[in-house]
Amino acid sequence: MGVTEHITIIGTGNVASQLSKSFRKNGITISHVFGRDVYKANVLAEDIDAKICTSLVDLPNQLTILCVSDDAIKEVVENIDPKIPIAYTSGSVQISSLPQKENLGVFYPLQTITKDREINFFEVPIFIESNNDYFTQTLFDLAWKISRTVKYATSEERSKLHLAAVFVNNFTNHILHLAQELCIKEDVDFDHLRPLLKETIAKIDIHSAFDNQTGPAKRSDQVVIQSQMDKLNGTTKAVYEVITKSILKTYNK
Amino acid sequence: MGVTEHITIIGTGNVASQLSKSFRKNGITISHVFGRDVYKANVLAEDIDAKICTSLVDLPNQLTILCVSDDAIKEVVENIDPKIPIAYTSGSVQISSLPQKENLGVFYPLQTITKDREINFFEVPIFIESNNDYFTQTLFDLAWKISRTVKYATSEERSKLHLAAVFVNNFTNHILHLAQELCIKEDVDFDHLRPLLKETIAKIDIHSAFDNQTGPAKRSDQVVIQSQMDKLNGTTKAVYEVITKSILKTYNK
Repeated sequence: MGVTEHITIIGTGNVASQLSKSFRKNGITISHVFGRDVYKANVLAEDIDAKICTSLVDLPNQLTILCVSDDAIKEVVENIDPKIPIAYTSGSVQISSLPQKENLGVFYPLQTITKDREINFFEVPIFIESNNDYFTQTLFDLAWKISRTVKYATSEERSKLHLAAVFVNNFTNHILHLAQELCIKEDVDFDHLRPLLKETIAKIDIHSAFDNQTGPAKRSDQVVIQSQMDKLNGTTKAVYEVITKSILKTYNK
Repeated sequence: MGVTEHITIIGTGNVASQLSKSFRKNGITISHVFGRDVYKANVLAEDIDAKICTSLVDLPNQLTILCVSDDAIKEVVENIDPKIPIAYTSGSVQISSLPQKENLGVFYPLQTITKDREINFFEVPIFIESNNDYFTQTLFDLAWKISRTVKYATSEERSKLHLAAVFVNNFTNHILHLAQELCIKEDVDFDHLRPLLKETIAKIDIHSAFDNQTGPAKRSDQVVIQSQMDKLNGTTKAVYEVITKSILKTYNK
């Protein structure tokens, strides 16, 4: 197995880019980059001072972090020299669903990573899994270089974390998107709602979301609920209806 | 009209309590408190060094802030001497739905207010409405004592703000409740998700929620969506399904 001080990154998206930058800052050299999109691979390689690999068969025999979309992981793992240790960054792909290799693992940073926003991985929990103890230790050591929260999680545990993360990030963000769309449509300034959003989230550090709930559905105020439903249509109305029902059920058991 | 330096508070809940404390801190005397719950009224009155009124007919002729639930506002307004200027704190009750009075207004702080958590109203937008210019100015002056964002909003505009607030606070919080319930059920530590939540909200200050969206629904990943649906049931599954549909529709127009 290659030493951890030199690693290869496969992928050129947000995770590849942000992880690479964080590794570099913490003394890990990304010596090689491979990406299907040669233009993007060149940009990333230049950015982090790495060499480009133009084919998977040219990869050096060293720890390789696979930052590609879930549906591409299997194909890449199949096409890499089985001697090369690989860890992928997905929350939902199970190790057992992939071709077996000598060193196959998971390096899952539980964070939302988009363009143009540098992530401080120090605060980000990283979940490790692998098919042997030695490789597990290698991945732990690597993760400790960039994060102060490194945990072992089985594929099953990781998929539970990922499901909760879908609620915490994807769904919360989409609710905020619907609110922003409403504000645009109704000519309301979303900035007026920012202190409310800030307080909503700050309260989660103090009490449970169950205890923090307020609003018409919490107090079963059918007059307000009906008048708000009348203002909505399409999927926004459907979302309003289902979440309202869920709140009513939560507080009227 | 009474001077703004002495006001009456009707109500003994979280809004009454937090607003009273903020007024007092900023030099406004709450001279009288009235509440249906005499025990709570006594506690609040003692807390803010005010006198108790045991009946609505005993209220002094001075600005009165009505911090009661939406469905109680009409009854209280009907039973107060019509000469007493009243402003209520609701997001959704229209002025035109109430009995007309000489000075009737709205003092709506756009914030989520629960027990045990002191609100700094300085950051909270307060929306004012009233049935005459002089009373509007009185309410503006009062709001400026505790907030740096005071705006005029018609009943119609206020109801739009309130609808957006239901998404930003009530729905976001309930999504987080479902995530916390999932974590308990699946034996996952919600603390692992706090950095994700923090980043989700921090990103809203930089880009739109539309641009920040990530996750299986955003990338139409039906394999992950189906496997996550299989893990859920009841209203949590219904919420997952409707928000996922809404995200799919948002990014596949």
